[in-house]
Amino acid sequence: MDRIPILKFGNALLVTIQVDMHDRLATALEEDLTGKIVEHNAKGVLIDISALEIVDSFIGRMLDNIAAVSRILDADTVVVGMRPAVAITLVELGLSLTGVKTALNVERGMELIKARLRTSDTEDEDDVEE
Amino acid sequence: MDRIPILKFGNALLVTIQVDMHDRLATALEEDLTGKIVEHNAKGVLIDISALEIVDSFIGRMLDNIAAVSRILDADTVVVGMRPAVAITLVELGLSLTGVKTALNVERGMELIKARLRTSDTEDEDDVEE
Repeated sequence: MDRIPILKFGNALLVTIQVDMHDRLATALEEDLTGKIVEHNAKGVLIDISALEIVDSFIGRMLDNIAAVSRILDADTVVVGMRPAVAITLVELGLSLTGVKTALNVERGMELIKARLRTSDTEDEDDVEE
Repeated sequence: MDRIPILKFGNALLVTIQVDMHDRLATALEEDLTGKIVEHNAKGVLIDISALEIVDSFIGRMLDNIAAVSRILDADTVVVGMRPAVAITLVELGLSLTGVKTALNVERGMELIKARLRTSDTEDEDDVEE
């Protein structure tokens, strides 16, 4: 496989990572994601890592990168489905994923993105009123 | 990888198939899916195959199996994201996936499931009125 599929859900994009990531696949995913964020005017990116038993520094960096680029394009990144053991390993590795939001599962992640959209909608309305 | 992740979205379950399916993985997926349908009282199963460049008779049979079992458990199966070349190959192989609904993408597949839920809700209400 040379591409990880990106699914569109309303204002959000969903990516499930199931395979071992290598350099080329990670770069392709980042490129595809940025393209899709712009194409679909997406406000959120959900990355499901429930299939991953190990998250090393390479994946941690990739998640941070995706979050940083998405933020510039005005989209939130939420990592969902992290296994308890993975969370422990990440902290032990000193990777606390500071730039990335996390949620227990896809539904909660989607709620996070929707909550943020409602807040920004209200802000937009405020702007109009001024 | 020994398990394909199954994501819950409201009344539906979502599976993205990204890796080559083999016997054990297909059996595990069928078992996991039936378990999750019962656990979450799911009314629909979305199977995204946009990552697959080839769908052979083995995958075709697996999709048919999943649809048949889900139907018994009162859940619709919708296959989404099929590539044009895959559709052509399926027909050439004589696999027309008769038991499976298809939709162009996840959003449309989700609409199919919701539409069916609305219909069955109305039927339930009719039952109550009688």
